[in-house]
Amino acid sequence: MIKNLDEKAARKVLKEQRIGHLGCVLESGEPYIVPVNYLFKDDGIYVHSLPGQKLDALRVNGKICLQTEKIEKSCQWQSAIAFGEFQEVKRMNKKIEILKEFSARFERLTPVEAMIEEQWNLGGLVVFRLNIKRISGMAES
Amino acid sequence: MIKNLDEKAARKVLKEQRIGHLGCVLESGEPYIVPVNYLFKDDGIYVHSLPGQKLDALRVNGKICLQTEKIEKSCQWQSAIAFGEFQEVKRMNKKIEILKEFSARFERLTPVEAMIEEQWNLGGLVVFRLNIKRISGMAES
Repeated sequence: MIKNLDEKAARKVLKEQRIGHLGCVLESGEPYIVPVNYLFKDDGIYVHSLPGQKLDALRVNGKICLQTEKIEKSCQWQSAIAFGEFQEVKRMNKKIEILKEFSARFERLTPVEAMIEEQWNLGGLVVFRLNIKRISGMAES
Repeated sequence: MIKNLDEKAARKVLKEQRIGHLGCVLESGEPYIVPVNYLFKDDGIYVHSLPGQKLDALRVNGKICLQTEKIEKSCQWQSAIAFGEFQEVKRMNKKIEILKEFSARFERLTPVEAMIEEQWNLGGLVVFRLNIKRISGMAES
């Protein structure tokens, strides 16, 4: 049976997962989707990105969504989506704080602050936040 | 190293996968994402759906995308996306042909034509096609 999740249950799914699909609208008016690692923190969703199509689009049209799902089996799953507005994180110490939290997840990266600061800034890595306006979800059980 | 996939390689990823994320634009202008089973056939992408938010949106704004990915490990993946236009499949025998192909994937369903015709029509199930305009993709290896 498929049913709607209430806001609290959908938020829980978003908080538990780490990989999701980010949606935005291109200048052509077309929807665009890209898989991302994300961080749910301080009631917002943080994503890091290299410059490219999605950043170009988001700087023009800040409407954004992040969808994720938790699948137990094909007929037992929960899917949640957060809608909101794009906000670039420009303050360097906040940016580094977020990137450190991401880096701590990956064993192959050594989470040394200096390395992060040096490499990630050089790479032009952008950090942005989805300021959540509403959350919804669905589940089959 | 992250690189762009050419159209042929991206199309191969879309053909091989069966589960993807469908994107559309809501009447509010917000992007919306929903996970779907899909069928790549006759150079189009078929999806079935119960009435709801995505169908309401797609009937107003037919711009649609379908993204999927093939993940070997965290630093070895391919992601592909098809952009196109929404087209509802209204001809009953085409609709049943597509639904039979979907049903054949799921062991828990017995692919008996009569059952499909009866149950799926009663449920108001809609079948639609994404008419592909362009395909692109990225990969890390």
